[in-house]
Parts: sequence; C-alpha cells; structure tokens
Amino acid sequence: MTTLLFLIGGFLVMWMAAGFAMLEAGLVRSKNVTTQLTKNIGLFSIAGIMYWLVGFNLMYPGEWLVEDYLGPFFIITALEPVGLGAGDASLDYASVASDFFFQLMFCATTASIVSGTLAERIKLWPFLIFVVVLTGFIYPIEASWQWGGGWLAEMGFSDFAGSTLVHAAGGFAALAGAIVLGPRLGRFVDGRVVPYPGSNLALATLGTFILWLGWFGFNGGSQLAAGTVGDITDVGRIFANTNMAASAGAVAALILTQVMYGKVDLTMVLNGALAGLVSITAGPLDPSLFGALWIGAVGGVIVVLTVPMLDKMKIDDVVGAIPVHLFAGFWGTLAVPFYTEGTNFVTQIVGFAAIGIFVFVVSLVVWIILRGLMGIRVSEETEIAGLDTMELGMEAYPEFAKG
Amino acid sequence: MTTLLFLIGGFLVMWMAAGFAMLEAGLVRSKNVTTQLTKNIGLFSIAGIMYWLVGFNLMYPGEWLVEDYLGPFFIITALEPVGLGAGDASLDYASVASDFFFQLMFCATTASIVSGTLAERIKLWPFLIFVVVLTGFIYPIEASWQWGGGWLAEMGFSDFAGSTLVHAAGGFAALAGAIVLGPRLGRFVDGRVVPYPGSNLALATLGTFILWLGWFGFNGGSQLAAGTVGDITDVGRIFANTNMAASAGAVAALILTQVMYGKVDLTMVLNGALAGLVSITAGPLDPSLFGALWIGAVGGVIVVLTVPMLDKMKIDDVVGAIPVHLFAGFWGTLAVPFYTEGTNFVTQIVGFAAIGIFVFVVSLVVWIILRGLMGIRVSEETEIAGLDTMELGMEAYPEFAKG
Amino acid sequence: MTTLLFLIGGFLVMWMAAGFAMLEAGLVRSKNVTTQLTKNIGLFSIAGIMYWLVGFNLMYPGEWLVEDYLGPFFIITALEPVGLGAGDASLDYASVASDFFFQLMFCATTASIVSGTLAERIKLWPFLIFVVVLTGFIYPIEASWQWGGGWLAEMGFSDFAGSTLVHAAGGFAALAGAIVLGPRLGRFVDGRVVPYPGSNLALATLGTFILWLGWFGFNGGSQLAAGTVGDITDVGRIFANTNMAASAGAVAALILTQVMYGKVDLTMVLNGALAGLVSITAGPLDPSLFGALWIGAVGGVIVVLTVPMLDKMKIDDVVGAIPVHLFAGFWGTLAVPFYTEGTNFVTQIVGFAAIGIFVFVVSLVVWIILRGLMGIRVSEETEIAGLDTMELGMEAYPEFAKG
Repeated sequence: MTTLLFLIGGFLVMWMAAGFAMLEAGLVRSKNVTTQLTKNIGLFSIAGIMYWLVGFNLMYPGEWLVEDYLGPFFIITALEPVGLGAGDASLDYASVASDFFFQLMFCATTASIVSGTLAERIKLWPFLIFVVVLTGFIYPIEASWQWGGGWLAEMGFSDFAGSTLVHAAGGFAALAGAIVLGPRLGRFVDGRVVPYPGSNLALATLGTFILWLGWFGFNGGSQLAAGTVGDITDVGRIFANTNMAASAGAVAALILTQVMYGKVDLTMVLNGALAGLVSITAGPLDPSLFGALWIGAVGGVIVVLTVPMLDKMKIDDVVGAIPVHLFAGFWGTLAVPFYTEGTNFVTQIVGFAAIGIFVFVVSLVVWIILRGLMGIRVSEETEIAGLDTMELGMEAYPEFAKG
Repeated sequence: MTTLLFLIGGFLVMWMAAGFAMLEAGLVRSKNVTTQLTKNIGLFSIAGIMYWLVGFNLMYPGEWLVEDYLGPFFIITALEPVGLGAGDASLDYASVASDFFFQLMFCATTASIVSGTLAERIKLWPFLIFVVVLTGFIYPIEASWQWGGGWLAEMGFSDFAGSTLVHAAGGFAALAGAIVLGPRLGRFVDGRVVPYPGSNLALATLGTFILWLGWFGFNGGSQLAAGTVGDITDVGRIFANTNMAASAGAVAALILTQVMYGKVDLTMVLNGALAGLVSITAGPLDPSLFGALWIGAVGGVIVVLTVPMLDKMKIDDVVGAIPVHLFAGFWGTLAVPFYTEGTNFVTQIVGFAAIGIFVFVVSLVVWIILRGLMGIRVSEETEIAGLDTMELGMEAYPEFAKG
Repeated sequence: MTTLLFLIGGFLVMWMAAGFAMLEAGLVRSKNVTTQLTKNIGLFSIAGIMYWLVGFNLMYPGEWLVEDYLGPFFIITALEPVGLGAGDASLDYASVASDFFFQLMFCATTASIVSGTLAERIKLWPFLIFVVVLTGFIYPIEASWQWGGGWLAEMGFSDFAGSTLVHAAGGFAALAGAIVLGPRLGRFVDGRVVPYPGSNLALATLGTFILWLGWFGFNGGSQLAAGTVGDITDVGRIFANTNMAASAGAVAALILTQVMYGKVDLTMVLNGALAGLVSITAGPLDPSLFGALWIGAVGGVIVVLTVPMLDKMKIDDVVGAIPVHLFAGFWGTLAVPFYTEGTNFVTQIVGFAAIGIFVFVVSLVVWIILRGLMGIRVSEETEIAGLDTMELGMEAYPEFAKG
C-alpha cells in the first residue's frame, strides 16, 4: 500500500513539472516561450538522470539501496529484485523503485523553481548545467540532512513535505542566480519598475491548477506510509488541509490586491494560491482546517507584499518564484510549531537558515563559475529580439502577429 | 479503502475546476479571458472556504461531524483525530477529512457551472458574492435533501452522483442569473442571433478532456464505498459506463450537426460529450453499456437541439452550460428508472422539480438583491472594451494583435 | 486490487487522448487547429463505441465475456453483474468492466497516432471512417494475436505494453495513410523540404507532458495484476524505468540537435521524450535503470535521425508520429531480449513484421477504398485556405491576427 501511495503521489508530483512549464510559459513574453518550454522539459529530464546517477544515493546513504557500484559513481545499477510474494505481504512495504520515483519528483521540483526566476535572459546550456549540479548534488546533500536522517532530523527540525528542503531551497538557488545574472534589460529604469506582462494568462492559470492538483501528491505522499487505516486517514487530513491553504492563499491575494490597488490582480491570485500551498507544506498534517486557512492566507499576503519589495531591490524574478517558494517557504517552516508538538521556533529557524545559507552560497559559487567559464547571459541583441529566434530559431507562436 | 477512493476521486474532481476554467476561457472572447480565469480560480477558492465554514455541516447534520462550535458558525474546527490503528482496520472506513474533501469538490463544481453562462458581462465581485451564497447555503441545503438523508432520499428519489443535485442545480442558478443579467450587447439584434465565437478552441477542447477525466472521479467516487471486491467492481462498471455515455454524446453531436448544418460543429461536439457525461451521472452503475450509449447519445442530441432554443428565448448562455447541465441533467435524472429498480418517473420528476424550483427561486432573489445593492452588470463601455482592461487592467494575451 | 490498478491505469491512459489532441493541435498550423481537435475528440469517442461493439470480443474471444449476442454483432450487452462479496475477496480479481475500460484506452491510443501524421490535408469523415475500421477490426485482430493469447503469444513474442501492438501498429496505419494521401501542398519543392512550423509550441509541450504522465498508466497498468506485494513492486520498477527512458530520450535529442544543428530543437526534444517512452514500452519491467536509460536514449536518437529521412522519402508526417511510434516502436520491440529472459531477436522481429505487414496492408487497402469511394483529400483551395474555415466554418483562434 505504501508503494501504491508512492506511485500515485509520484505521478501527481510528476505532473507538477507540466504545471511549472505552463505557468512559466504563460508568464514570459511570447518571444521567449519556446526557450522556457525547452528549459522545463530539459530540466525535468536531467533531474531524472542525475538523481539516479548520483542524487538518490547521496541523499539516502544506506548501502542497501545500491547493488553495485560502477567505479567512482554512485549509480543505482539495478533496483532490487522482487523478492516478496503475497504471503509475505506487508502493508507498510514500499519498494525502492517506488521510493526512488517519488523522491526524484521532489528533486525535479526544486529545479523547476529556478527556471522561472531566471527566465528571458539566461542562456540555455549554463542553466542546464546548473540543473545538473543542483539535482545531482546540492539538493540531495541538503535534503539528506533531514530526510536522509542527518543532523537536522536529529536536531528536531520538522519539514513534512519540504517547505524548506524543496521550495525555499529552490528559491535560494533562484535568488543566487538572479543576483549574478542581473535584471532583464529595461526592467528597472530611473527607479521605476517597468512591468513586462505575461503573454498567456490562460496557460499560467492552467499551470497553477496543475500545481494545485500535483500538490496533493506532494504533501499526501509525504506521509510515506499507507499501511494502516490511520495512515490513510492522515493522508485525508493532509488533502483537506492542502486544499484549504491554497484556497485561503488565493482569497487573501484576491482581497488584498482589490484593497491595495483597487482591482484584482490575477497573477497575484495565482501566486497567492501557490504560496498557500508552499506555506502548508512544512506541516500539512497537524493543523486543523482553520489552521490551514490562516497559515495559507498569511502565505498569500506575503506574496502580495514581497513581490514589490523584490522589485525595489532590483532583483528581477520573472514569475515571482522567490516570494512564493522562498518567503512563503520560510513562513510555512516557521509556522510548524503552532500545531506540531515537539517542534520549536528556534530549531525551525536554525534548520531554515542552515539550508538557506548552504544552498545560496553553493549556488552563488556555481553561478559565478559558470559566468566565468561560458557566460550565463545572452547578448543584449538576443534579449531584445527574443531568445526563441536568436538561440533556438523556433518561435512558440509563429503565426500570431505581435500587437 | 473507501478513504482512498474518496481521495483519488476527490483529486480527479478537483481537476474538473481546471477543466471548467479552460473550457470557459476558450469559449469567451479574448478581451474577457483574464476575468473568466479570475472568476474560476476565485470561485474554487471561495467554495473551499465556505463549504468548510458552513456548507458541510448544513448538508450532513450528524453532530459527529463537528467537534466544537465557534459561536454562531458551523465551522469544522478540527477533523477527527486519527483513532484507528491497523488492528481496527475496516475496509469500509472513510475518514471525515476524505469525505469532506470529496464532497467539497461537488460543491465547487456547482459553482463552476454558473460562471460560464454569465461570462463577458457580469461584474467580478457580485459574482463572487453569489458564489459565497451558493456554496455556503444553496447547494448544501438542496443536496442535504438527498445526500444528507433528507426528504428526497426518504421519498425514493435517486441521483447517484448528481445529475440534478449538482449539474441541474448549477444550471438553475445560472439560468436565474442569465435572466436577471440579460444578454450580452449586440447578441440578439432584430430577431437575429449574432454568434460570438470563442477565442481559443484548443483550450476549450483541453477543458472538455479534463472534465471527461475528472468525471471518472465524480461518478466513480460516488460509489462511496470501496471496501469489498463488489464495490470496486461497481466502480469499474461506472467507469466504463461513464466513458461510453461521453463517447455517445460526442458522436451524436458530431453526426447531428453534420446532418443539420452540413458541417460538424466542434463546440457542439465538446458540449455533446459533456452532456453525455451529465446524462449518465444520475445512474452510472446500473445501465448496461448499451444503456449508457443511448442515454448519453440522447444527452448529446438535447444539447444540439436546445442551444438554438435558448437563443430564441434570448437567454444568453455563453458556453452552453444550461443545455449541458440543466437540460441533460433533467434527462439523466429522468432516465434512471429505465435501469434502476425501485425508482419511478414520478419521484424523479418531483425531486428534480423540487430542487429546480428551490435553487431557481432563491438564486433569482439573490441575483435581484445583488443587482439592487451593487449592480451586477458592467457598463456598456466596459463590456465593449472588454472586462480585462476595464475591470482588471490585465489582458490575457497582451501581445497577440486582434484580427 | 487489480481492478483498482486497471481503473487508475485506465484513467491515466484516457488522459493520453488529451495529450495527443494538444500535441497535434500545437504542431499544426493555426488554420487547421479546429479540424485537428475535432478529429481527436471524434476518434476517441468512436473508439469508445467500436471497441465495445466489436473490438473487445474480437480481441478476447473467451465466451465468458459476452452475456448475449444481438444478432450478428458481438456487442457486450451487459458487463457481468457484481457477484463477489467481501468474503470472496480475491486480490487478483479484475472485473470485466475494468478490463474493458483499460483495454479500450489502448485501442484509442492506436487511433490517436494516425491522426497526427495525416493532419492538415485529410477530410474529416474519411478519417473517422478509417478510425471505425481501425478500432473495431484492425487493432483488435492484431492485438488478439498476442494479448488475446493468439499465435504470437504462443510463439514467444514479447511486447509488454505495446511498442509493436499499439505504437508501431498505429505508425503503420499512419504510414499507409500518408502514402495514399500524399504530402501537403508545397512541402517538398524541387528537392527542398519546406518546414511548416507548429502554431503553438506551448500546447505541444503540454501534450507531451500529458502523454508522459499517461504513460505511467500505459506501462504500469500493463502489469495486469496488483494482487501481491510483488506485483505492486513490479509496477514501481515500471514507473521508474518509464520515467528514465523518457528522460533519456529527451536528453539524447537535446544533445544531438545541439551537436548536429548548432541549436536545440524543442519539437525534437518533445518527440525524443515520446520516443524514449515508446522504446521502453515493450519491456518496461526487466531492464535496470541503466538499461532504461540507454534504450530510451537510442529511441531519442532514432527520432532525430529518421525525421529528415522521412522527409527525403517525401513522406509527410506532420507531427513525426512515424519516427516516434513506428521506428522507436521497432527499436523497443527489438531491445526486449537484452533484458528479458526467454525472448530472442528472431521472434521479436517475426512478431513485429507480422503485425506490421498486416496493419500496413489492410490499412493501405482501406485507405485506397476510401479514396475511391469518397475521396480522402481536401481540395487544393481548402488546403490553402485552411480546413477550419472551409470544412468546419470555425476557426480555433478567430481573434488572433495572422502574422
């Protein structure tokens, strides 16, 4: 049964890759859509290989996971053979393959977060090389500290499904990249912020709904057990809380943008829903539905307030991934002790800071090395004409005249 | 196992929210797409809060559902704690959280139906306020008559997954709104019907496929039990019948539009599939596959015939939601006695009429009050220029020149 | 449990219909999108009826499947009643309805493959009539040779989830159609290949992700058993291998197009992922993850190399379905003996050839008959103006000016 939960959860989280792709393709300008789509399918594929080649065994160092080593690599050359018959059926049993499949999807999610922030100006290949490092090394190392049974787990840090380990980590990697890469041309002029509206809000909304759906796998599957009625009941609570937090984040952004700006801002509502989801991810099981409501609503408020803040700092985050994943991820991690016994704010902050510093510093170094080695930013000419025609020679919407 | 069925069914029905959003975004004109997307994610989020705040406890009045009351509200402050261990495992057991999650999705579906009909002319906030009333009060009250064990259930009315309770109810609420709101400007001129083609049929088709997929959760999950092999076998029959009815509805519309108009009409085929789905929803378990075929096909025929009829009555239903959900919902409810023992046509009609009158009248009153209080219709100027620029200041496809 | 696997697998494979629809709608020019969408929802609906009317009983000739015959037809008039109570619960038990539902989706997939190749020039109705023959007769007959326990199964041919039976068969039917139909106007001029870029790569990418997701049902459900922990563990291995092969196919195409053309080609990456999926479909259980990697990667390479080859032969395959489904399907079928005991290359080639010749020849005959009876190709005028306005009178994107 746990295997089944991993598989259902895993395909739902896999679906989030499509969600990020649609969200990001919808929020960039049409001249960069093909590039953004290529990055998204590329990063998901690379994650699938790197997490197998290195990541999984870095993260879960138990040697039972590996059958044989190929020289210096930690490749899982074969997943364990099927040795259990019906007679030995243990409801708690989860196969390594199902576990690998499920964990891989979290690793890929971390990389998806980065691609949105850095859109419209980063070169394709340096981005993909960063994904190799992120999915093969950075994510597995920091995640091992908690989910691999490392020092954060021993310290009592609590992050059920990864507000910090996945979302904030992706946000920190994105932040480092945004700083090294700089903002898009013409985005910040004379202290003024020039908005670059997304080219296809229907896609962006579709992406958000896909992510919302996938999140049931993300949080629900993180129960990591489905062998008892109690476990499945817990998964039910997680589903209900996850939906509530998303709803609350969206409604909070809906009301707040109306109040602040006199009109509702759809992209803020979408990001509000996502921030609600990120906020509940650190502890989706223990809060009451009312708890999920206010935790998610605060997440939505954070997004509405911090998007302009980033703009003021001239950090150019194309899709708002840093507010959604990093800031709401921090909030979600911090909120755990309100409902979960045995946790405290200090430990939560220490865990968040440790992962944040590690991911940010290592990412910064990698970005700087990549910048030195091959350059990470396209030429001004390419940026103005669009990456699609200049880098890939293929437009996403070649027939639609530009207004 | 029943918990698991609720969760899988629930995430499939949740996905229908994305289906409605894409269907409606594809069928409105591009100048109103952002508004339509905002309404859809807004209504789904509001439903998630209102059904928790009031609806669920109105609908299922058993006091075991509520742990404590907060003053005058019926808030579910906490879902029941996990009290069952593996030793007490009952396959029939479904947790309250999973039940709440599953039932919530039906409530949200009802609201989704309304947004399509009223598109392109209704103001955002009055619509969202109507959703508050619909998901918090109107839907839970009428649904309690049947699924809460009320008088319709006692009378022998049969509506397995909600042809009447969800779909026709949504259709009646939409009809009341369409009457109060009036048709779009220029839609009916000198006895002539001016077609306003949808701006993105790829999205509309995607939405239809999403709804088709989600419907397996809608009908399959409504078995409400998965503890025995017999139950799961029943779910299998429901899946097969659901698919057959959708196929038959689509093929019926395909052939009928070819015969009537000399060319196939894609939007009719999409609505035909949906009408097939609505038609089988009242009784997806008992018919043979041949039964599902003809019930679904009649649904498809109904749509093709009643869309022009509504136009003649100058009721402007932007996406055809009233034919699909109300008329095919009536047909599906009426068709139950052909295959389900213990039901009869009179009871079915009485049940349909009771719910229809209640929802229609209450909705009408609410719409009229909203019109009096704040106005529900945008100005002529806004309607002509598009709600997106005038109300939200954000276009869905800002870069695509309008032809 | 097997019933449950069929149902989950089945709804995932159903979702592939949406994937094909989006992929194909994204890769045709905007003047033919409505027609392509109509074909896709039409073929899926027709498959749902024909596979019930004839196909399923042709494919699985056990008489226990049929309750009564209606004259000359093999209609399944009723799926078996629910006769098992909880006491008789057998975990291996799969209901006929769930089996029918699952197998239907494979039949529909075969038809989906054909529609992409023949896009932008075939008339709607002859295509739909071909689908009637394909889903009612051609597919069930060839599939019965293996999955119905026919001579290929007895011979030792191995095709776990249908690299040959579904994908290559669809590819052969498409190839026959492409030959009879001829290339699009202006596609091959004076030995030069004129590219016709797809109109919406965001949709095409979405379609690819949908197919990727659906493939977990396609391959995972083909385990056909979920009654033991060993079975579920096997499904886990299949999921992991399926994902790996897709990743490897995408990465192979990513690198190869960069090396060969100096820039990455997104449509090749998408088709590379799909080719990886097709390649692993014949044997997703036995390979190690490394096996899945190289099998999938070779699939991706095949696509990149054979798309230009088809162009040289002046066979016009609009979406690249023949390279993806036929060529990679052959490769996947051939690769089975590397990892699966009891299989050998000769048997694999014989099986592939037998199905290929049968499907190709019968399809060719059907296409030629259809051409003689009613014509299968639209007029030059229609092709130039677009099928949407000329055949259906409905544009997919009526408001977007064409550049």
